[in-house]
Amino acid sequence: MNLPDIPSLHQPALEAALRHCIDNKTKPLGALGRLEALMLQLGRVLGSETPRLEQPQLVVFAGDHGLTAQGVSAYPGDVTWQMVMNFLAGGAAVSVLARQHGLQLSVVDAGVRCDFEPQPGLLLRKVAPGTADASQGPAMSADQCATALEAGRDVVRGLPGNALLLGEMGIGNTSSAALLLSRLAGLPIERCTGRGTGLGDAALAHKVRVLSGVLALHAHAVEPLQALAALGGFEIATMVGAVLQAAAERRVIVVDGFICGSAVLVAAALRPAVLECCVFAHQSQESGHALMLEHLGVQPLLALDLRLGEGSGAALAWPLLESACRILAEMASFEVAGVSRNAD
Amino acid sequence: MNLPDIPSLHQPALEAALRHCIDNKTKPLGALGRLEALMLQLGRVLGSETPRLEQPQLVVFAGDHGLTAQGVSAYPGDVTWQMVMNFLAGGAAVSVLARQHGLQLSVVDAGVRCDFEPQPGLLLRKVAPGTADASQGPAMSADQCATALEAGRDVVRGLPGNALLLGEMGIGNTSSAALLLSRLAGLPIERCTGRGTGLGDAALAHKVRVLSGVLALHAHAVEPLQALAALGGFEIATMVGAVLQAAAERRVIVVDGFICGSAVLVAAALRPAVLECCVFAHQSQESGHALMLEHLGVQPLLALDLRLGEGSGAALAWPLLESACRILAEMASFEVAGVSRNAD
Repeated sequence: MNLPDIPSLHQPALEAALRHCIDNKTKPLGALGRLEALMLQLGRVLGSETPRLEQPQLVVFAGDHGLTAQGVSAYPGDVTWQMVMNFLAGGAAVSVLARQHGLQLSVVDAGVRCDFEPQPGLLLRKVAPGTADASQGPAMSADQCATALEAGRDVVRGLPGNALLLGEMGIGNTSSAALLLSRLAGLPIERCTGRGTGLGDAALAHKVRVLSGVLALHAHAVEPLQALAALGGFEIATMVGAVLQAAAERRVIVVDGFICGSAVLVAAALRPAVLECCVFAHQSQESGHALMLEHLGVQPLLALDLRLGEGSGAALAWPLLESACRILAEMASFEVAGVSRNAD
Repeated sequence: MNLPDIPSLHQPALEAALRHCIDNKTKPLGALGRLEALMLQLGRVLGSETPRLEQPQLVVFAGDHGLTAQGVSAYPGDVTWQMVMNFLAGGAAVSVLARQHGLQLSVVDAGVRCDFEPQPGLLLRKVAPGTADASQGPAMSADQCATALEAGRDVVRGLPGNALLLGEMGIGNTSSAALLLSRLAGLPIERCTGRGTGLGDAALAHKVRVLSGVLALHAHAVEPLQALAALGGFEIATMVGAVLQAAAERRVIVVDGFICGSAVLVAAALRPAVLECCVFAHQSQESGHALMLEHLGVQPLLALDLRLGEGSGAALAWPLLESACRILAEMASFEVAGVSRNAD
């Protein structure tokens, strides 16, 4: 497997300069709270005291899941391809939000059960029409997993700009995310499993039973790439490649919710420094997501009880990243504005 | 005192239509979380299934506080007028954020200790150059309080659009907000008092002692307008008038942090239905703010540990209101998009 090196971004001189710049803005020390940490991070990733976000790309990775045959989702599998068409037609939540914020929206068919015609905004990178049923065997072969990773890297290589917003679509993919979280973080599957698109109590209990069986079947799949192949989805594996490539190119990566987070979980297990490039957009209502964020040691920007996916949370958080950059570039210092400092 | 009537906005037919519209969008039921509650609220306030936010006005109310003579702030009082100049010159955080989001920024001189020249963006509504020292007597007379309220109403009458974002500037005004919270919510002043622009432990203890003395001196001031006159600031009293007028005109009111919240606290004590028009932008790091939001029974959109004021939190939350409106107007229904529903 051909994975890029991802060195740490630690740059003491730049960080000191950024801190000095932030602390000389006309505001009390630290008064912009978590936006100040965001300013430091964006400066670090983009290597500048006045980082500029350019041509942000929102990419929705889509794929179908063989495990849906076991009744783990409230929606039929056809919804994956139907929603891909909805994204491209501009009618989905993420389409609306991308238009609002000037985000270029693309959809990657990483493994949807549908033969799409080529069309603007759709990147055809299908590994296969849906994964295999992970309750019967691995979701994908090691070769398919490698193909998906390379496709994700290649997608990012072809994108302009310096920021990648992650989104996803795949009926059944909260199951894959829960399985990956349980396996890679060593957490009980009951705690990692949530209601997805809206399961009731009985259906949730069934989902937990199915996922427990899947974990038992793949007890040997403990390395990140083994776990990804056994338990993942094509959209998740392709996203892992995209995250690794984006971090290697020092793009800012805006991570949506639980499923995108599972791709980052795998990528960070392979190359821990990817986390330095990742801005976590929101905490989802999906119950495993809080555990995932805690395991990664990160704090998201928003907490709006979203559980939609698609990249909707990443898009909603985007203006905060733009605010951070604008404040660094445009806000006055005490000296320039002629404002008195405090007595300290 | 001439206060407007503010009837409740309860409109069962409109609310049912909004709920139906939201539930038919191409997403699982409830998947947009707290954005869905925001859509319902904006629809209710603006009386439409497809509410549109028009010509949003960010108004920063500024005033000085006589109580600063008692050493309750880390910054000198001159910073109030200096920051007013910074707002108008475009160099403050709120100036940057207003530009980013297309918010018209105005500053109201409600009682700053400075004779400003008339200039674009500055509304001269000075009641007096700073309040009196509330540790010696009432911060303002009943007449001054009435003048400030009427000025706030008049400012809003003169503004275009259907949305008012509240901001404030006034060295010492976290003291007024803490005093009003303690008095009107019946909470101990220790719990309501925070570090403001950055007091250390000793200075915070001093601030609590000073504020305890102020409350004891004005033990009789228990009615909302009495408390406002005894403990408030001109910028807060003017904001109370602005909130009442904006609610009477069914404008959307975006409430910034602790000080703007204290104006809403007073306005809601006078006319409870104003809360139906208020969107609470963020939870500030100032320690009394969480108590204030809890007392009002509201949940803010953001929690980014901000403690800057100026309307910076209101401006940062603004894109979420726009997203709510756009999703109502532009997102496809299941029928239109040809997407399958769940089995229920």
